[in-house]
Amino acid sequence: MPNRICDIFDIDHPILQGGMTWVSDACLAAAVSNGGGLGIIGAGAMPARLLGEEIRKARQLTERPFGVNLIMINPEFEQQLEVVLAEAPPAVTLGAVKNTSVIPLMKEKGIKVAPVVAAVAIARRCEEQGADAIIAEGSESGGHIGDTTTMVLVPLVSRAVGVPVIAAGGIAGGAGVVAAFALGAEGVQLGTRFVCAEECPVHEAVKQKFMKSGDRATVVTARCVGYPVRTIKNKLSGLYDQWERKYMAGECTAMEIENLGLGKLREAMREGNVRDGSMMAGQSVALVDRVQPAAEIIAEIVAEAEAAAARLGSQMALSR
Amino acid sequence: MPNRICDIFDIDHPILQGGMTWVSDACLAAAVSNGGGLGIIGAGAMPARLLGEEIRKARQLTERPFGVNLIMINPEFEQQLEVVLAEAPPAVTLGAVKNTSVIPLMKEKGIKVAPVVAAVAIARRCEEQGADAIIAEGSESGGHIGDTTTMVLVPLVSRAVGVPVIAAGGIAGGAGVVAAFALGAEGVQLGTRFVCAEECPVHEAVKQKFMKSGDRATVVTARCVGYPVRTIKNKLSGLYDQWERKYMAGECTAMEIENLGLGKLREAMREGNVRDGSMMAGQSVALVDRVQPAAEIIAEIVAEAEAAAARLGSQMALSR
Repeated sequence: MPNRICDIFDIDHPILQGGMTWVSDACLAAAVSNGGGLGIIGAGAMPARLLGEEIRKARQLTERPFGVNLIMINPEFEQQLEVVLAEAPPAVTLGAVKNTSVIPLMKEKGIKVAPVVAAVAIARRCEEQGADAIIAEGSESGGHIGDTTTMVLVPLVSRAVGVPVIAAGGIAGGAGVVAAFALGAEGVQLGTRFVCAEECPVHEAVKQKFMKSGDRATVVTARCVGYPVRTIKNKLSGLYDQWERKYMAGECTAMEIENLGLGKLREAMREGNVRDGSMMAGQSVALVDRVQPAAEIIAEIVAEAEAAAARLGSQMALSR
Repeated sequence: MPNRICDIFDIDHPILQGGMTWVSDACLAAAVSNGGGLGIIGAGAMPARLLGEEIRKARQLTERPFGVNLIMINPEFEQQLEVVLAEAPPAVTLGAVKNTSVIPLMKEKGIKVAPVVAAVAIARRCEEQGADAIIAEGSESGGHIGDTTTMVLVPLVSRAVGVPVIAAGGIAGGAGVVAAFALGAEGVQLGTRFVCAEECPVHEAVKQKFMKSGDRATVVTARCVGYPVRTIKNKLSGLYDQWERKYMAGECTAMEIENLGLGKLREAMREGNVRDGSMMAGQSVALVDRVQPAAEIIAEIVAEAEAAAARLGSQMALSR
């Protein structure tokens, strides 16, 4: 059977690496793409000029298609968009979608566009504007999240749109891939697992922390100000907890809560301050236990998933 | 392939109906059991004497095994447990597990015991005490919930215990069942879908509300006091929101928040006050769109799941 995600993005395996600020640079993205998936540069708050450099660097590191993740609520978004339209990377994944009219602008340049959505209504609007695929991201994901989990969001979005759906959130291995396909997805996006790719530029202390994390490791901060973010629990997340109580009591502003995170993602991810920095991670961090090359991660997931799907097909017994 | 959940509970299909207070009485439980699944009486805060009557009623309505759901934080728990030990229903599912030593007490009476857990550590403790199976309940479920979603909790619990795992949370149809099995489950528990069973005694207005609900329908209340509960958004959930703000500001007690819910579940579920009552529901409410007999729900899920698993086994393409 042909896979529409492979066809659209011209990749060997329908596995995307989630765009992650301060984490997924050109090196990681190229390693994933060289492994047959779709690597994605996380633009985050990167100055537009640097983003252009990363895109050109990725082109040098891989001959395969790769993507850029843009986050529309980012202050740099307009300048980043200009660079993206000029450089025309093969693909863009679009987070925090506010204005779907940017989709046709990118499509005109031949860029494949996959918005990341957390609800059905926005998925429909993105499809109407020409999105090539929809990334349905469940609330178990890391970073900025919505409310609906992958188990429910993926079947709902798959029913609502005609373009193929890529499931994100809670997937770290072949079992999760088969589950996602059972729910209607035709591709998957993994972020957290690729943080532990060998080629990932995060500090070694972060990879160690990820590998040790279990099912109670993550927490959602800043829910009270309307921008919930999933991170690994540490001293910083405790600080959020205190300030959120103050906010609910009217003793501080939403801006003060948002400012708690300034520079903190970089402090954790690049400098290795796993205590005071912000380590965005999905709940699937509990399923990650090794550092491996990105290509090995992809090959392992494909093998696991194909074996698991075959096993389910022949052995699943729902009647005795 | 033999299915361990069918074997343990002596049922035709590894499908449990979640115990739901003021919702799953002997009539619904018996209808599910007669359909080949495991119907479960939700004991909730039911006086012990009434629970005994429900158990005896279920025995009259079905010759098949059924279960009782006990919630350990319930003030009536000790008396309910006495009744359960005396009546010895075929199965018990145990919610809000605090003290695992009640498990062997029930086992001695020949009762099959499946605790409902939201974390790995408690699953292990329940297995050590002789639990026959573990119900791993993701945070997309209705009513009292934990933090970890089905996509992550089910594989983690499946790895951690040797007894079979029943997945709960976010499952409303055959696709969800296949996903759950891919994640390592050998059975599923559905609550929300069975609220729309013909035999379910909830008020017609509740079934209507469930069928109209979409992906933004549910909300988690009382998170701030440590007992998060997922319900359908309405005037009552808005009230919780206001009082939770007061609580965070130190202007009311946790008890005042808890008291908001007194009598509200009954008011919605039985009296049909969908505006002011508490309608506990999982996110899967967005996937429920029909009222059907319980046996038809089970037959449909089995057929869908077997077809979907066969399709995945033969068609899942992860390489082009």
